[in-house]
Amino acid sequence: MRERLVIIGGVAAGMSAAAKARRVNPELEIVVYERSGYVSYGACGFPYFIKGEVDRLEALLARTPAQLAQQDIDVHVHHDVVAIDVAARTVRVCNLETGQTFVTPWDKLIIATGASVKRPPIPGIQLPGIFTLRTVEDALAIRNWIQRERPRRGVIIGAGYIGMEMAEALSAHGMEVTVVDLAQQVMPSLDEEMATLVQAELAANGVNVCLGQGVKSFLGPGLVRSLAWQVAARLRGETTAILEGDNGRLRVRELIMEEEMLPADLVIASLGTSPNVQLAGEAGIALGKTGAIAVDAQQRTNAPGVWAAGAAAESRHQLLQTAAYSPTALTASKQGRVAGTNAAGGEARFGGVVGTAVVKTFTLTVAQTGLTLRAAQAHGLDAASVTISGGSRASYMPGQAEIRVKLVFERHSRRLLGAQMIGKDGVAKRIDVVAAALRAGWTTRDLLDLDLCYSPPFAPVWEPLLVAAKVANREDHV
Amino acid sequence: MRERLVIIGGVAAGMSAAAKARRVNPELEIVVYERSGYVSYGACGFPYFIKGEVDRLEALLARTPAQLAQQDIDVHVHHDVVAIDVAARTVRVCNLETGQTFVTPWDKLIIATGASVKRPPIPGIQLPGIFTLRTVEDALAIRNWIQRERPRRGVIIGAGYIGMEMAEALSAHGMEVTVVDLAQQVMPSLDEEMATLVQAELAANGVNVCLGQGVKSFLGPGLVRSLAWQVAARLRGETTAILEGDNGRLRVRELIMEEEMLPADLVIASLGTSPNVQLAGEAGIALGKTGAIAVDAQQRTNAPGVWAAGAAAESRHQLLQTAAYSPTALTASKQGRVAGTNAAGGEARFGGVVGTAVVKTFTLTVAQTGLTLRAAQAHGLDAASVTISGGSRASYMPGQAEIRVKLVFERHSRRLLGAQMIGKDGVAKRIDVVAAALRAGWTTRDLLDLDLCYSPPFAPVWEPLLVAAKVANREDHV
Repeated sequence: MRERLVIIGGVAAGMSAAAKARRVNPELEIVVYERSGYVSYGACGFPYFIKGEVDRLEALLARTPAQLAQQDIDVHVHHDVVAIDVAARTVRVCNLETGQTFVTPWDKLIIATGASVKRPPIPGIQLPGIFTLRTVEDALAIRNWIQRERPRRGVIIGAGYIGMEMAEALSAHGMEVTVVDLAQQVMPSLDEEMATLVQAELAANGVNVCLGQGVKSFLGPGLVRSLAWQVAARLRGETTAILEGDNGRLRVRELIMEEEMLPADLVIASLGTSPNVQLAGEAGIALGKTGAIAVDAQQRTNAPGVWAAGAAAESRHQLLQTAAYSPTALTASKQGRVAGTNAAGGEARFGGVVGTAVVKTFTLTVAQTGLTLRAAQAHGLDAASVTISGGSRASYMPGQAEIRVKLVFERHSRRLLGAQMIGKDGVAKRIDVVAAALRAGWTTRDLLDLDLCYSPPFAPVWEPLLVAAKVANREDHV
Repeated sequence: MRERLVIIGGVAAGMSAAAKARRVNPELEIVVYERSGYVSYGACGFPYFIKGEVDRLEALLARTPAQLAQQDIDVHVHHDVVAIDVAARTVRVCNLETGQTFVTPWDKLIIATGASVKRPPIPGIQLPGIFTLRTVEDALAIRNWIQRERPRRGVIIGAGYIGMEMAEALSAHGMEVTVVDLAQQVMPSLDEEMATLVQAELAANGVNVCLGQGVKSFLGPGLVRSLAWQVAARLRGETTAILEGDNGRLRVRELIMEEEMLPADLVIASLGTSPNVQLAGEAGIALGKTGAIAVDAQQRTNAPGVWAAGAAAESRHQLLQTAAYSPTALTASKQGRVAGTNAAGGEARFGGVVGTAVVKTFTLTVAQTGLTLRAAQAHGLDAASVTISGGSRASYMPGQAEIRVKLVFERHSRRLLGAQMIGKDGVAKRIDVVAAALRAGWTTRDLLDLDLCYSPPFAPVWEPLLVAAKVANREDHV
């Protein structure tokens, strides 16, 4: 009998695992259960699909179940795995279309259950017009809502990466957009003074930003299209106007302490993600300190024959050498490949993460890697930083734009801890050099020693990163 | 009495040295002698000045002698240092405006004489309309020639970096452009199959490319504007037409073996550069194997109190750990800073080079670092390579373009030796990651382990570099 690999989850990690396992072991039986109706899709493209920059949903689907069947990968969508029995080596699966449940065996199991968007129990969050964005179904629902309801006022709760992309996407539909976040800054993953540059870009594009504000409740006054929601303003004692929405017109209802009402025809709740670990936890599979499934470099869990990969699992942080939670597409794909290789009888190790990310919002690119100054200090490191402005190209070249670079480093050793870069030209792939430097354990001096490319259309002689390294390397930081 | 630092040469290395020496030692007397009429200019911008993309020459001049005087740096343009006396610690200087020569002392000396464009003794090379491009005077002369003579046919001899930039620049003026090179490929710094992509870009932009052909003589048949030049065709025995230029019209004169005549109203000879070392050599200062001035990491020459920096000096190659000749603007600026620091009594070391470069020609970006496969094999390394195509952005994003990546590595150890990248979007700063990897001494596996940034507008999940690393990392290369 063929050995049987069951994979729970068919998105980035799960499908990478399946494809890699098939290449490593042509004999293996591979079965994938996916709760949603789609597999192997590029979730990071959803904001561009909603914006309209990507026209067809099909463009985001890398492979269909039919195509995967040709590789002898047996994919079942709308199948929810509801229990894992580690001792018996079985899973219990619910066919969401029929409601029927069945138990099926595995010799090897890969848990790639991904993450879910946090959906806090705010009163009214179930109202129509309030969305999260994680699955194809979510993306379709938002796009359909926009086409059908023609919302005029979009509200985004959570000013993280998805929030920034969705602000651009909703604005592209002519919506008046408001971004709300509990934090006192947008993009809490950045240091505050860098985040103010992002805030300025939002303002320049007509986006309202409400900081230090949490949503208290969602109100549905008759018309769904004039959803109103209450914001618990953190202003101490100031009176703010309560506004009531009525198809786009605002009117002051009364003055009250610390509360505010804003109208919204469409709400995107992008409050971050949390790993889908309930299934693993109930099966007795160990979770790590981050709350995600604990794995070693081979993506093995503590249960024999069980691997985990992607946004449900932890990663090793290359800089901190501790477990970290890094639910990115690249991590999912790499971990999936590692899990798939090992489950199929090969040997592979995941190299870890360093927290590299980039996002575009309107005309601005925001990139970061490693630790912010705040995070470094929170880790007990004696961290210092420098922030400089450099040019994306030679100063005399058309298209030249400012790039702001913040380098974070250990004060005495000058060991690099992280970087943040913001600008309108040439930012994205510049951060990757710092990602490499962090993995190498380099100092600001090592960064300065790099022979980076130069030509007037692409960089000044002193590339912004080198300028930052030069400044960071001066004696006076010691 | 103040200690006296004399710097020979006032461009990238010389002026970096002067500025840094001033910061390190406010007491030092700093005197700079520059042969040309300009100091502190961005020579890499000349093709864009000639093209017209940069309008004003002043944009390329970082600092004027008057501005430098405010920093107490005594700059003398049109002053040619004609002899160095190491024992007496003097230089003999010729004031090119008066023709007068004088001897002046130094306590510390920095040689930053740069490089000159090779100007082979081809008959007729002194004819009007034939230019090299290295100094401000060269750039002005070419631009003036274009404005005054309205050349219709431009010929570029030498298909290297400058040749590629000038092909774009001359085409922008509506010229019919021909590029000639002795090699069988354009951009001899690339491996051949990568160079064919550049050749295709030239062809797509209407540039004629004549390979394997050297210039035998320049002819000036009456009209300078119809300069004709003879090409010794390397075709074995084939008969080729001799063409005679007559203000743009070509006509066949006669058939002859292995010779060809092409008309040209403007010729740019860009046959590479050689370090200006005659002065140092005559003073008994040691040259290295590369032909440039031998220096240690402090930029010290073998003569006490004498440093050298920039295109006149060698560099240490980070990968090969041998002396290399790397006449780039960044190397010049870094070496100048190091020489200036040390000459002023501070302590600094230059970190070496790895051969990183980038150039734009028309819509194509060509970047490289480290060794080509050919160069690696010439160094006796058991080198292998992989060449892949990846996307500059997620496949579904507008603006996505193919990036071709060639990774060169040691066959058994998989140690990275170099990379070449060619494409129309997002190429330039991607090469820098490999420059970092080369300095780190990493393998293809280490490259694969990097946590590189991803977002649909900037990269696919599997960044082209990661795809190349993945393929290079497969067993079958061993």
